[in-house]
Amino acid sequence: MISKEHLFELFTETRVATEIICAPLEIEDYVVQPVVDVSPPKWHLGHTTWFFEEFVLKKYDSNYQLFDDHCAFVFNSYYESVGEKVVRTDRGNLSRPTVAWVYEYRTCVTKAMQGLFLGSQNFSEELLQVIEIGCHHEKQHQELLLTDIKYILGNNPLLPAYNDDFQEYPVQEFEQEWITVPEGVYEIGHSSTSFCYDNELGRHKTYLNKFEISNKLVTNAEYLEFMEAGGYQDVLLWHAEGWDWVTSNKINSPSYWHKTKKGWQYYTFQGLKKITPEAPLTHISYYEAFAFAQWKGMRLPSEFEWEIAQQQFEWGSRWEWTESAYSPYPNYKKADGALGEYNGKFMVNQKVLRGGSVATSTKHTRATYRNFFHPNLRWQFTGIRLAK
Amino acid sequence: MISKEHLFELFTETRVATEIICAPLEIEDYVVQPVVDVSPPKWHLGHTTWFFEEFVLKKYDSNYQLFDDHCAFVFNSYYESVGEKVVRTDRGNLSRPTVAWVYEYRTCVTKAMQGLFLGSQNFSEELLQVIEIGCHHEKQHQELLLTDIKYILGNNPLLPAYNDDFQEYPVQEFEQEWITVPEGVYEIGHSSTSFCYDNELGRHKTYLNKFEISNKLVTNAEYLEFMEAGGYQDVLLWHAEGWDWVTSNKINSPSYWHKTKKGWQYYTFQGLKKITPEAPLTHISYYEAFAFAQWKGMRLPSEFEWEIAQQQFEWGSRWEWTESAYSPYPNYKKADGALGEYNGKFMVNQKVLRGGSVATSTKHTRATYRNFFHPNLRWQFTGIRLAK
Amino acid sequence: MISKEHLFELFTETRVATEIICAPLEIEDYVVQPVVDVSPPKWHLGHTTWFFEEFVLKKYDSNYQLFDDHCAFVFNSYYESVGEKVVRTDRGNLSRPTVAWVYEYRTCVTKAMQGLFLGSQNFSEELLQVIEIGCHHEKQHQELLLTDIKYILGNNPLLPAYNDDFQEYPVQEFEQEWITVPEGVYEIGHSSTSFCYDNELGRHKTYLNKFEISNKLVTNAEYLEFMEAGGYQDVLLWHAEGWDWVTSNKINSPSYWHKTKKGWQYYTFQGLKKITPEAPLTHISYYEAFAFAQWKGMRLPSEFEWEIAQQQFEWGSRWEWTESAYSPYPNYKKADGALGEYNGKFMVNQKVLRGGSVATSTKHTRATYRNFFHPNLRWQFTGIRLAK
Amino acid sequence: MISKEHLFELFTETRVATEIICAPLEIEDYVVQPVVDVSPPKWHLGHTTWFFEEFVLKKYDSNYQLFDDHCAFVFNSYYESVGEKVVRTDRGNLSRPTVAWVYEYRTCVTKAMQGLFLGSQNFSEELLQVIEIGCHHEKQHQELLLTDIKYILGNNPLLPAYNDDFQEYPVQEFEQEWITVPEGVYEIGHSSTSFCYDNELGRHKTYLNKFEISNKLVTNAEYLEFMEAGGYQDVLLWHAEGWDWVTSNKINSPSYWHKTKKGWQYYTFQGLKKITPEAPLTHISYYEAFAFAQWKGMRLPSEFEWEIAQQQFEWGSRWEWTESAYSPYPNYKKADGALGEYNGKFMVNQKVLRGGSVATSTKHTRATYRNFFHPNLRWQFTGIRLAK
Repeated sequence: MISKEHLFELFTETRVATEIICAPLEIEDYVVQPVVDVSPPKWHLGHTTWFFEEFVLKKYDSNYQLFDDHCAFVFNSYYESVGEKVVRTDRGNLSRPTVAWVYEYRTCVTKAMQGLFLGSQNFSEELLQVIEIGCHHEKQHQELLLTDIKYILGNNPLLPAYNDDFQEYPVQEFEQEWITVPEGVYEIGHSSTSFCYDNELGRHKTYLNKFEISNKLVTNAEYLEFMEAGGYQDVLLWHAEGWDWVTSNKINSPSYWHKTKKGWQYYTFQGLKKITPEAPLTHISYYEAFAFAQWKGMRLPSEFEWEIAQQQFEWGSRWEWTESAYSPYPNYKKADGALGEYNGKFMVNQKVLRGGSVATSTKHTRATYRNFFHPNLRWQFTGIRLAK
Repeated sequence: MISKEHLFELFTETRVATEIICAPLEIEDYVVQPVVDVSPPKWHLGHTTWFFEEFVLKKYDSNYQLFDDHCAFVFNSYYESVGEKVVRTDRGNLSRPTVAWVYEYRTCVTKAMQGLFLGSQNFSEELLQVIEIGCHHEKQHQELLLTDIKYILGNNPLLPAYNDDFQEYPVQEFEQEWITVPEGVYEIGHSSTSFCYDNELGRHKTYLNKFEISNKLVTNAEYLEFMEAGGYQDVLLWHAEGWDWVTSNKINSPSYWHKTKKGWQYYTFQGLKKITPEAPLTHISYYEAFAFAQWKGMRLPSEFEWEIAQQQFEWGSRWEWTESAYSPYPNYKKADGALGEYNGKFMVNQKVLRGGSVATSTKHTRATYRNFFHPNLRWQFTGIRLAK
Repeated sequence: MISKEHLFELFTETRVATEIICAPLEIEDYVVQPVVDVSPPKWHLGHTTWFFEEFVLKKYDSNYQLFDDHCAFVFNSYYESVGEKVVRTDRGNLSRPTVAWVYEYRTCVTKAMQGLFLGSQNFSEELLQVIEIGCHHEKQHQELLLTDIKYILGNNPLLPAYNDDFQEYPVQEFEQEWITVPEGVYEIGHSSTSFCYDNELGRHKTYLNKFEISNKLVTNAEYLEFMEAGGYQDVLLWHAEGWDWVTSNKINSPSYWHKTKKGWQYYTFQGLKKITPEAPLTHISYYEAFAFAQWKGMRLPSEFEWEIAQQQFEWGSRWEWTESAYSPYPNYKKADGALGEYNGKFMVNQKVLRGGSVATSTKHTRATYRNFFHPNLRWQFTGIRLAK
Repeated sequence: MISKEHLFELFTETRVATEIICAPLEIEDYVVQPVVDVSPPKWHLGHTTWFFEEFVLKKYDSNYQLFDDHCAFVFNSYYESVGEKVVRTDRGNLSRPTVAWVYEYRTCVTKAMQGLFLGSQNFSEELLQVIEIGCHHEKQHQELLLTDIKYILGNNPLLPAYNDDFQEYPVQEFEQEWITVPEGVYEIGHSSTSFCYDNELGRHKTYLNKFEISNKLVTNAEYLEFMEAGGYQDVLLWHAEGWDWVTSNKINSPSYWHKTKKGWQYYTFQGLKKITPEAPLTHISYYEAFAFAQWKGMRLPSEFEWEIAQQQFEWGSRWEWTESAYSPYPNYKKADGALGEYNGKFMVNQKVLRGGSVATSTKHTRATYRNFFHPNLRWQFTGIRLAK
């Protein structure tokens, strides 16, 4: 269990980091929601704050005065059991509360939390736990903030830059090799006493057949070959639902790619740029990852294969699609009440992604971390690692 | 034809008035589009500016430098023949250009226009005409700005106020009476040489049967009677499409009305308020206007009846639904090219409204003015005047 | 008022005619509903029968036993005030009752009606009226049966023929001329004592400006010119809603037209055939009629112009789109109760068509008849007559 | 590999069985498609026939004349790589080809197949294989025929019976007990040389933790307890997508259940009947299965647990939802070409069901059989077996 002191550090660092991400934004950028999966940045700021107000201050700080009655209604996201909320598709329709107001709300809650930390009160295990979850919850939203900002700016006809130095395409400077893992019984799941989500727990054995996995992520150059070979036109490479997705959305390249007179370019946080062939591919759906693997005559790893093999390769720049559906581990137990809605209720129709990405917050990933998204989504920094 | 001097006055007054309407807004309020018919205020600011740039400066000012290449794409609204444009439903997804940028754009174009006026150039009739249309076009958008702002704030869970003094519910301090108009041949349409839209022209004769029309608009109190008598539940009062609209949208009161513990209240520019029974009803659809008239055993006037009778009653606080569909007058001629898209292309599936409203810009209505909206819309200041 | 004897003749002729229309069908053809506006033929058979059971036998024949409790639920169409009904889009989902059952139901009701006629009872005016409406109601459904059958077969990939002799394209063997009608006050509406619908009543004066109207319907050849001149690609010819309709449905020809290796062909009741250039165009929407007139520099007549001029030209092979929206005449009064739902409740968002068509039942049209459809529909035998 | 003689028997028995299922139908019942997942019975008859024509006769019988050019277009289902096809939602819009025609088509193809069998030709392994797949394919459609017929009749307002003797609710006459399976490495997948689908192959090891599984399926009585305890109203029992499904479809009971004055009844092949409390529950979605298990504090088994434990309990009356997503086994290889579309392309967003049902064709299931459906579907005879 984390100590009160370390938790205070974690809390402070986390709250600041969120605001640093938003620093380059114009006020207008905080407001819009161009697609349902993307939330307005001001909503992220408010929602991560509401979490501490709702689950910590209301319960553990008897002196705390609610900042405003509307917060719960406006900033609750998916906790159905906590009461009414703004429907998700309406988040981008709300001009109020203003950005300035949201920052005040943040400051107020951050200060109240600091007060709680600095008070003489001993923190119960339960209290330590819920604050720790709140910090990791906010770190998750930091990554979403970055990807949502990229969506907001990258789908604007002006294609404005976000900042000068965020590097999305770190080159992998080593040769492609195949790592072989022998068959046998392996252990899966979180084991140490450090923080993890409930969905990583229930460490258990699994049997793996012998497999090989690449030490290197698929590059833009490799994916361009697939495109030029007609990969998007060959129905036999795709799942039935993937094919429907490709045809009804007229998909013919990764997200953010633009075919220009100067060849393929992509939108980055610095604006439109020429594609770097050797950089790891990103912004592709599971359907595209699968079709690419089919075309190569290979496959995606399962999440267990990935977890066992990961010590032998570098990872962390892309969330890597696995073949595994997001399901509970044996003996998985949902937490009671509202916090139990955190992970378990999404365990259907989603695919597990492993690794982490250039947008992942510090200390917010680990070898056992199970990220998950619907198979058609691609605004995250997703990527492909092949197995066979 | 308007003189250059009067036009300069009109232009100056119009440009300033638009900005005064926006003065109470927060930056965030300029950005959102909570429903397709409502445009973000910054879009109105840009679009009315783009009109002068596209149709005046590009053509008549050889020194003019385009402010930015993206304007046409972002701020064109419906002129299909002028080129590609942002689809209407996407207007609220654009955080850029920023509000500050739009104001700069306005200033730049206003100054260039002033330069044109102050130059020694004589203005051709064509040039006078297109600028005059541009001013009236902007006045139309002033009314839309007000109704869109009301929608944006009035559908926000915080129900914020807009300003302190805008009065939406001016009381009619006189008794209800019936004005009788004898049957006969009457003349309809614009006749003077002052400004009007093309859809008012082609002054022509029409035959009216004897009819009676009320000197007073229907009040909130009268409409409440209809509601309490079960008007929203009696299918026989409604058009088939009206009934579908009522049931699928669960409509049971005018727009902006809230049933609270203290009884019926409505959202106004000053926030939530108790309903004034004697004030003229507003924010109802044509379907509701028709059903109310059915329930009273009366009907709505035709637009011709309204135009002939209007000298005998006060009007101007509500756009009054008429029974008339929006169609061309005999001998109506669409203007050539893009400006021809202004009115004619909407002449199907819309109903004519006559009068004007508390939100109508000064000098922007007249007895022959033909406003038009789809029968289900109610975010304008619409109202009911009965005939029989 | 029609006499009991004439009404018996009308009733007998009408009931037989409906069944003759269905004689060439396979059982399967009676069941399907390929689009919401088209009803399964067995539904028409049942619905026209239900009308007599519900509005005549239940009320005027004390000995009548309901054929089956489900009839009202299955065969009520739009009389919201008469009780629950199968939603319109579900009609094609019902395999039961079977076609044989529906024919039994028809026979049973026809016989009971004959018993009523042959009984000694004097028919009240009210009874004569409701039966007469029932007959005209069934004649309306005879036309719908033909157009729905054409839709069902003409949208089947096998393009099967319906019968050998139904001629849809009668050639107009005379030269095109312009008929001039002088300006003045004219009378509009039904005047004789013979049958008409309530929407034709309230004969009243109208003022018409001088106009010219063609003695001839627009031909396939003329419309092909429009198509070849790019009419479907020129946005300036179309209403805004028409343009949306063209682009979102990828419309580029009248309904039932196929571009084949042998040139343009159309589906007819005898299967696919070469287009007859001189035959009158049909199966076009109001939007297309309007765009064609725009392209010609002319316009569509109003329904009043049509009614006044019609004695001077031949009509009856096409329902002719007019510029008039479907609205109540002055002094129009809806009938009380369920029969009042017949016409009045559709008086919004529809366009009036005048004339009649090759599919119109005998004695089912007249110079004052007001047909009406939404502007996008084209499965009826619609056509164009130009005015200027 | 199956012998030619046994295959002939299998083929003959299969073709006859399909037609026996359809014998009680009215012609009208063959035509309709009340919901997209349900196909018209005549489509099943044609599609299973087309399979033999397309994949056997066209390739292996040089004398075979295509029955009709339209078959491929009308009766191809999902083989995207074989050419154009009627879109799935349109199947119920086609009155032609008629039922009589489809039976002729069946007879013609069955005879040609019999000719092939009775000829002197030796059958290659490939030929034996494709015919065997064709038979099993038709057996799958036999089950779909039964469930589609139930849907067509059971959603008709007349609730007609199908036949007198099909028993959907066989009672489990034994006590509920928990079977314990020890942890360890187990083998999964098909091993014998008899027929199986490609998705069962790649027999491989898996590691199972110790678990318990019920010998008995959940009964109607147990599910009624869940309903009466408010299971459908408690958001915490449901997946997020399950909750959306419940609320937007207003689900409050299994499919085919009706709350009547006499209490809960359900539609069966013999019409509406009182619920048998002790019979195994059916027609529930995966979402409902999961929520029920949550409410019990238990869970659904994984497909591997089911396969290992199944020798110790009776199964075969319900397709049992498992917690496992439908994914490829290690070393799964899609067949080449069109037949490769059979199973692999559905391996996303579906859940595995194990067992078999009262509607499953003889010889069409086995312990390794992997059925799969989207988690919201319930027109199959699905059921629940609990694990913990």
